[in-house]
Amino acid sequence: MWEITEESLESIALGTGILGTGGGFNPYIGLLRAREIIRKYGPVKVILPEELSPDDKIICVGGIGAPTVDIEKIRGTDSFTALRAMEKQTGTKATALISGEIGGGNSIEPIIAGAIANLPIVDADGMGRAFPELQMITFFMFGVNHNPTIICDEKGNISVFPNAISPLWMERMSRAVCVQMGSIATWAFAPMTAEEVQLTAIPYTMTLAKNLGDSILESQTQKSDPIDAIFSTIPGKIMFQGKIVDVERRILGGFTRGNLSIEGMHTFLGQSMDIDFQNENLIAKISGKTVCTVPDLICIVDTERGEPITTELLRYGFRVSVLGIPAPALLTRPEALAVVGPQAFGYEEDFIPLKI
Amino acid sequence: MWEITEESLESIALGTGILGTGGGFNPYIGLLRAREIIRKYGPVKVILPEELSPDDKIICVGGIGAPTVDIEKIRGTDSFTALRAMEKQTGTKATALISGEIGGGNSIEPIIAGAIANLPIVDADGMGRAFPELQMITFFMFGVNHNPTIICDEKGNISVFPNAISPLWMERMSRAVCVQMGSIATWAFAPMTAEEVQLTAIPYTMTLAKNLGDSILESQTQKSDPIDAIFSTIPGKIMFQGKIVDVERRILGGFTRGNLSIEGMHTFLGQSMDIDFQNENLIAKISGKTVCTVPDLICIVDTERGEPITTELLRYGFRVSVLGIPAPALLTRPEALAVVGPQAFGYEEDFIPLKI
Repeated sequence: MWEITEESLESIALGTGILGTGGGFNPYIGLLRAREIIRKYGPVKVILPEELSPDDKIICVGGIGAPTVDIEKIRGTDSFTALRAMEKQTGTKATALISGEIGGGNSIEPIIAGAIANLPIVDADGMGRAFPELQMITFFMFGVNHNPTIICDEKGNISVFPNAISPLWMERMSRAVCVQMGSIATWAFAPMTAEEVQLTAIPYTMTLAKNLGDSILESQTQKSDPIDAIFSTIPGKIMFQGKIVDVERRILGGFTRGNLSIEGMHTFLGQSMDIDFQNENLIAKISGKTVCTVPDLICIVDTERGEPITTELLRYGFRVSVLGIPAPALLTRPEALAVVGPQAFGYEEDFIPLKI
Repeated sequence: MWEITEESLESIALGTGILGTGGGFNPYIGLLRAREIIRKYGPVKVILPEELSPDDKIICVGGIGAPTVDIEKIRGTDSFTALRAMEKQTGTKATALISGEIGGGNSIEPIIAGAIANLPIVDADGMGRAFPELQMITFFMFGVNHNPTIICDEKGNISVFPNAISPLWMERMSRAVCVQMGSIATWAFAPMTAEEVQLTAIPYTMTLAKNLGDSILESQTQKSDPIDAIFSTIPGKIMFQGKIVDVERRILGGFTRGNLSIEGMHTFLGQSMDIDFQNENLIAKISGKTVCTVPDLICIVDTERGEPITTELLRYGFRVSVLGIPAPALLTRPEALAVVGPQAFGYEEDFIPLKI
């Protein structure tokens, strides 16, 4: 057991920024929001999945929408509203919370709700990274019931999906309501049992995020290579380095969609990399040849400082390194690849695991 | 008290087609659907609003979406599904049902659910005609709580809005979900009390629809003028007669939107009428000059037979009469005009009541 304090939030924000592969909402905004809440309500306990007891009821809260909107239309304590609405809808009080998506600012939603409700959060999540759609959460890929789902906004609107016929229909209806709410909204999922969390969540990812952030901060203090520091915590490789020369980005259907081009520098001089994103980076190609796809992580970081650059902040001229990090093992199983493999996003490529 | 039988459905379909002002869903499809149900479950009792008792709980069911879709993607008994979902959500059993919209096929949704559930329907509705959006129902205009709302589809998807911050937000979220469901879905509204129905519904409209249909059928049998027959039942006037020479129609945002032009014949030779519609006919102009707007009824009928032509069936060459029928008094009050007057649909015109 450890505690998320005001101090540890900075590391968590950096680490979840890496794991967000460009999405999951801006982690710095998340840091600012969570810091205010922790100052007011105190630290939040983090418990291991194996510490959960059979009586526990674990509710997952998080955000849905376009990251480009999230940096302008900042949410308050909507994840707490969503939590209470789910408790009311199901008549079940939560005993712990969990993140659906460790990547990006979404990692902090259960921290905010947990601080207010005085509930611990589980050291695990439903993606091990960030993905753009709700059916892409491991809980649902591996059989946890997705009904009911709550979607709420900062204005007080609440919608419930007590019977979506599949996780994909939950996503469709939730996204449609989210777009009406302003392309940003907050979810709560039905209470899970300890066993469900233990069998279907990606474990220890809050600790991983904190360790990643710690290592980056330490490298900055010691003036050592931040990318070496990242790879000392999570295995991966540098896939490309260069300068961003083009970014196309638009808000479409409740997502931030677009692509970017990077002109090679250093050992990549003369080459170029193109990356497509739907909130998160989906596929990276060097001179037209695919080098990495979902569910492997494509992370764009500032070459000098090792800090993640999320898709809504990509800009011409940034000097970046593109890191490739193999996906958690659970995401490479056939049930998962059917939902988060490249073909699930409309690409023809099969998933070829990144070699590091 | 009277009963809706297989025989009376034909009159009701004709009458609601007139009151639908082009929308409310195709009444012939509604007739076919209701006929099967009544053959199987028996007739449905119609009770007067004043016959309701203080213990009654009245649930309103109906359809939302684009009439052009409704004639291809035919709903089954979804209004019964919506009824049961609302009863489950609120823990309240309905004792009677009511139509939200007497115009068009929507008038038959409570007949279908009522036949299956063996519940009477109230001789009243929430529009006295048809309107395209959910906030345009008199219950909500005059203060009945719109929370919760159920939206469901034929596939088994159910969504609940336990807290929409206004009727307009209920419409927005419901419409967004409806579009995902295929631009046709079915609603149920929160149970109402007898007093709420008595104070906010447009009364006796099921009887009015049946009488309108009876008079048209009688005129057809007697080879007398069907339009005279209509005006013997409901006051109104012929605003235009001619041939449809142009129709533009598209499915947009969960509505059928478009406009049509009619070239004058008989006493209107040399003139032309243009009508805009959003599911229902909204505004009629003769040679550019507005002659009738919502909430007054603009009804297009076959000149020969007096039968209503709904917006999804409008076609080049039809010989039509455009009837103007003054709106029910409740719809001309300021609270109503704010929601269903021409300006609520984006027109600059003030509402000028039709002179007949």
